[in-house]
Amino acid sequence: MIQANNPALRSWIPVPENSDFPIQNIPFGIAQLPDKLPNAVTIIGDTVIDIWELADAGLLEETKIHQSIFGHRYLNDFLKLNKADWRAVRNRLSNLFNEENQELQGNEELRKKALYAASDAQMLMPIKVGDYSDFYASKEHATNIGTMFRGKENALMPNWLHLPVGYHGRASSIVVSGTEVRRPMGQMRPDPEQPPIFGTCKLLDFELEMGIIMGQGKPLGERISTTEATDHIFGVVLFNDWSARDIQKWEYVPLGPFLGKSFASSISPWIVTLDALEPFRAPLAKREVPILPYLEVEGNKAIDINLSVEIQPEGADPTVVCRSNIKHMYWAFEQMLAHHTVNGCNIEAGDMIASGTISGLTPDSYGSMLELSWRGSKPLPMSDGSERKFIQDGDTVIMKGHCENEDVRIGFGEVTGKILPAHP
Amino acid sequence: MIQANNPALRSWIPVPENSDFPIQNIPFGIAQLPDKLPNAVTIIGDTVIDIWELADAGLLEETKIHQSIFGHRYLNDFLKLNKADWRAVRNRLSNLFNEENQELQGNEELRKKALYAASDAQMLMPIKVGDYSDFYASKEHATNIGTMFRGKENALMPNWLHLPVGYHGRASSIVVSGTEVRRPMGQMRPDPEQPPIFGTCKLLDFELEMGIIMGQGKPLGERISTTEATDHIFGVVLFNDWSARDIQKWEYVPLGPFLGKSFASSISPWIVTLDALEPFRAPLAKREVPILPYLEVEGNKAIDINLSVEIQPEGADPTVVCRSNIKHMYWAFEQMLAHHTVNGCNIEAGDMIASGTISGLTPDSYGSMLELSWRGSKPLPMSDGSERKFIQDGDTVIMKGHCENEDVRIGFGEVTGKILPAHP
Repeated sequence: MIQANNPALRSWIPVPENSDFPIQNIPFGIAQLPDKLPNAVTIIGDTVIDIWELADAGLLEETKIHQSIFGHRYLNDFLKLNKADWRAVRNRLSNLFNEENQELQGNEELRKKALYAASDAQMLMPIKVGDYSDFYASKEHATNIGTMFRGKENALMPNWLHLPVGYHGRASSIVVSGTEVRRPMGQMRPDPEQPPIFGTCKLLDFELEMGIIMGQGKPLGERISTTEATDHIFGVVLFNDWSARDIQKWEYVPLGPFLGKSFASSISPWIVTLDALEPFRAPLAKREVPILPYLEVEGNKAIDINLSVEIQPEGADPTVVCRSNIKHMYWAFEQMLAHHTVNGCNIEAGDMIASGTISGLTPDSYGSMLELSWRGSKPLPMSDGSERKFIQDGDTVIMKGHCENEDVRIGFGEVTGKILPAHP
Repeated sequence: MIQANNPALRSWIPVPENSDFPIQNIPFGIAQLPDKLPNAVTIIGDTVIDIWELADAGLLEETKIHQSIFGHRYLNDFLKLNKADWRAVRNRLSNLFNEENQELQGNEELRKKALYAASDAQMLMPIKVGDYSDFYASKEHATNIGTMFRGKENALMPNWLHLPVGYHGRASSIVVSGTEVRRPMGQMRPDPEQPPIFGTCKLLDFELEMGIIMGQGKPLGERISTTEATDHIFGVVLFNDWSARDIQKWEYVPLGPFLGKSFASSISPWIVTLDALEPFRAPLAKREVPILPYLEVEGNKAIDINLSVEIQPEGADPTVVCRSNIKHMYWAFEQMLAHHTVNGCNIEAGDMIASGTISGLTPDSYGSMLELSWRGSKPLPMSDGSERKFIQDGDTVIMKGHCENEDVRIGFGEVTGKILPAHP
């Protein structure tokens, strides 16, 4: 067992019941703390911990990592290290906050410099995203979309069961949770008998996804096997792949989605390490057709993470519109990574690879409004009596995720985004 | 007229006849010079000029740009400035190398530190590419590919004449000219009646493209108009978008090309400024259908750049297989940029936007082997008596480009890449 995952550990920092952040989590992020420059942080319960201060005080010396790495604006240089280093830091932090450890607990001056109420920490983009690729790894989602656009018979494309289908996405427009998102404008063709028009997106949607944040991969020309893949993955975030369905529909043939996605995508600020998620591994869905050896995996490569999506109209209470789980995903992250690099494509620290929309088997587990409202034919009731086919101005979309077993709950916090009206 | 473009200027540095780099060019790059760290350079004739040394000697003081910016590993921080700054540096360099100027010409010690034979300069990737997007802006190319895959009647997709179709590409695998490229392996399905196989790409191709290198765009949520676009573009490079046609064919539905492209793309090392290309502007092709106002442009927005592709089998002379010109492109770079940002997508300094394959009207002007050999049905003869349907191991592909009028020739040098056999 990874030392920091020990369910018996208790922290001297209070952890409220059902907190996403027990001492067994120790996720990484970047925060703007009062009167400080942005730097690396972690969280236990509702307490944000300034990792740079701990390093500056010499408390991370045993990890042999230079403290300056925790003072950078982004975590990328930390991600360039390797799994042993990441694990050493997480284990040491776990150790420092263990209720039996007095090194920091007994040092009031340093505690004052290093510990903050979560409400005082402004969470920032934790990484400078290098390249971002998005997959399409939920069979239920691919089938739903395929059924809508091509009918039930041709729902899944011939390649879908043979390889994890993916495409390149826009990295520059990935924003951190809480960033307001402006409704995009663009070209669309609502009436196929008429010329296209320019206007405001009418069919604004979310996509419930998760993303892996990469450590350093291999140089150009080499590949990462499914077995090696686990060690190259730093951690996991919640990901809302905002989608403008009307723009997407008109533009996407034949080269794929572009402006229908690139106006914004949102990630949760805390990167939960893959190490912390290991106790929640689950069996991958059974293959429906044989797959090529380079995509085969051994052992449990799915992860059992409960996910939900809420829509909160302006001034109203949120309504849960979707409950899903990423364990249903047909392709594991390790398979996506092996496929992504099988042609020699290099992966760099800070790259992000997303799952694609995570839809489950039942209609209330679909991960987008397109599927939940079945192209707008089944509006969803909100807490204030209104209905939603797609997302309206002023709506906030909230995604949450957590793993749970009899001993411990490891959560992701949330990724939220409020929709602003389009520019006039 | 931009001062540095004055055709009457002559340099005190010798410029061979037909050189791509007269004093009217002044492109920017990054070189590794003997016993130095990589830094910013330009070139006149066959002489590479260390810009950092000139700045260190105070010769660029009037530009008010801190000299350290020319000492960085990549040009990105220089690109974050604006067109006035880029122009000031280019004008000042033009002035320093004007035959009438003695400031450097008369300073032998500094000349020894700052001037190098081009053969002594190892050219490196000039930018750290942020996001890379690729368009599909040649009507001839889109029609050729469409004809092959869907027949003449349905060659152009319904959206093609209404918007510049584009997609996101892989930034991390963009390499500088001269970098050897390993033939990719991957999943393909040569026989549609049989399951897919894993193997070595058999249909390796080039795509003749050009790319614009971006200065700083606007923040997320804002757009860049076609009129503003010109000022946000720093310069232009040659671009070889290597393509594995067999991998691409099997994977690309419905989300677009992915591993068929991401194993490598090559750029020329010298970024020719858009300023230097202004004298070679040409009228854009006539619109075949009305376009929406946000895509309209005024004045000449095409650029008249002669392009060629050569294939050099190992140990043999190169054979020219294509002569094309980017002036035939249906969509201008300014239109691509306006379209790219119309949804609020942000563009950052160091982003690259490529044209897509530049094919002309005649079969010898097609910009890929797929078109030149018409899917392999018309092999091309090489100088050594062999034939090519696609690219073979050991082949070097060489792309060149230059503009020319009665006064001056502005060239791009070349982008070359040799194909190594796939990993066993």
